[in-house]
Amino acid sequence: MIRKVAITGGTHGNELTGVYLVKKWLQNPAPIRRKSFETVVLHANPEAIKACRRYIDRDLNRAFSLHDLAHPDQRYESRRASELNALLGPKGSDKTAVDFILDLHTTTAAMGLSLVVSNESDLTWEAVRYLCAHEPKLRVYRWKGDEEDAFVDSIAPHGFAIEVGPIPQGVLRSDLFFQTESLVYALLDFFEKRNRGEAIPEATRPVTVYDHVALIDYPRDSNGDIDGMVHEARQDRDFEVIMPGDPLFRKLDGTEIFYEGEPGLCTLFVNEAAYYEKGFAMTLARKISV
Amino acid sequence: MIRKVAITGGTHGNELTGVYLVKKWLQNPAPIRRKSFETVVLHANPEAIKACRRYIDRDLNRAFSLHDLAHPDQRYESRRASELNALLGPKGSDKTAVDFILDLHTTTAAMGLSLVVSNESDLTWEAVRYLCAHEPKLRVYRWKGDEEDAFVDSIAPHGFAIEVGPIPQGVLRSDLFFQTESLVYALLDFFEKRNRGEAIPEATRPVTVYDHVALIDYPRDSNGDIDGMVHEARQDRDFEVIMPGDPLFRKLDGTEIFYEGEPGLCTLFVNEAAYYEKGFAMTLARKISV
Repeated sequence: MIRKVAITGGTHGNELTGVYLVKKWLQNPAPIRRKSFETVVLHANPEAIKACRRYIDRDLNRAFSLHDLAHPDQRYESRRASELNALLGPKGSDKTAVDFILDLHTTTAAMGLSLVVSNESDLTWEAVRYLCAHEPKLRVYRWKGDEEDAFVDSIAPHGFAIEVGPIPQGVLRSDLFFQTESLVYALLDFFEKRNRGEAIPEATRPVTVYDHVALIDYPRDSNGDIDGMVHEARQDRDFEVIMPGDPLFRKLDGTEIFYEGEPGLCTLFVNEAAYYEKGFAMTLARKISV
Repeated sequence: MIRKVAITGGTHGNELTGVYLVKKWLQNPAPIRRKSFETVVLHANPEAIKACRRYIDRDLNRAFSLHDLAHPDQRYESRRASELNALLGPKGSDKTAVDFILDLHTTTAAMGLSLVVSNESDLTWEAVRYLCAHEPKLRVYRWKGDEEDAFVDSIAPHGFAIEVGPIPQGVLRSDLFFQTESLVYALLDFFEKRNRGEAIPEATRPVTVYDHVALIDYPRDSNGDIDGMVHEARQDRDFEVIMPGDPLFRKLDGTEIFYEGEPGLCTLFVNEAAYYEKGFAMTLARKISV
């Protein structure tokens, strides 16, 4: 049984879709109420939302490793991670306050409607399969780009993030807002059906998954500064195959750089603004069936 | 005669096209050298560039009013405005250090390649006409949205801003980078031809101009918080006509709001991220010939 679900928005304060969906439901929770379980909604990073920045001191969505939670420092997001862990977790416990965390994100990359899955429970995958049957445009990225899963949703036993784009930071788009909202309601409907013991055949069918393989950094000069851009022929080509010899980057002087890696992988998160400082221009993933 | 031209990038620190074009030319100034005049390039807001934010304390591109320059305060951009005024101006003087300022910007709105003109000299308009003949996709917005022209380029007797979009803040796009670069070279070629006394018939032909009429704010709740978005039917429709009854906004609850103003005006800067805090969702302009 699912007893309690949390929907978090504004984990990154400049990703406004989640910020305003949460605001909408705080004012009027009727659309997220279901009979068989409780749903809580909250703004994960209130100070970053006020500042309309991704974060104040550090990326909140990398602040939930067991080590960091056990050794909190005084940075704002470290303190907020402890609060959220106490409120929704604690991470790794048998008795967490919530069963499932849905974290709402947006991206400047052309990721369309997608799920980022790193909290790999059976229930998580059931929910993923159900949503993919409900929304055929939805794509699934199994993320393994960090040493440990330190996302917000990792403090509950089940969960994932919704990533929607392309949309600039600090911007609301009506089309993507309502598409995200609709996915949330479908997920809540799934929990309701499951709690009632209804047969849910969609939750057992295989789904296509983009399985994380590697990160690709930007070209950089001898000082470590970026001196190239995603090639115009690769821009906006998320979930598309890349082959050796395909154009990858264009340096500021116009020189082209070509892809030389494994053939047949797909590029994801191509040219996401927040990843310039993290040191990757895109990720590579293998398309598989799960 | 044009003696000296300044090209400024990073006036807004998260508009990376100008930041990296300037970086490119600082490393290798050959492409911006012309025989008959000097060109200087500089990062207008170095601290905001480091932080990858629009500004640190205030919008630098609103900090050049005569009043503010005469009464500088201690905010970072106020001090930087004084420095730039000393370096490139002083504003209003008969003998400014530079004759023309080209300021490089980007926008999250679908403005394509456009010029924002507020420094209305004969030479400015000659340059506008030349560039429009050189690049037929280029569009011209005559901006009167502020009480006084307090843009960076206002400290020289002639100048304008290049605005290119749509592009998220904090992102480089190869296609827009090279299109912007090409416009800059065309402008420098124009000054060179003019200094040589060549006939430049393109500089005298009438051009279509979008002449500023008004700002339109987002729908807001009783606390003054935004509670609506640009309607999906108006999103990305920069430079397009709006008529009474056309969909304008959609509130968070899905309710539609329709345009009720003057017929036949065009919408510009639709859903620009930086203008949420300034209180406008788009601007209205009248299409005229100048």
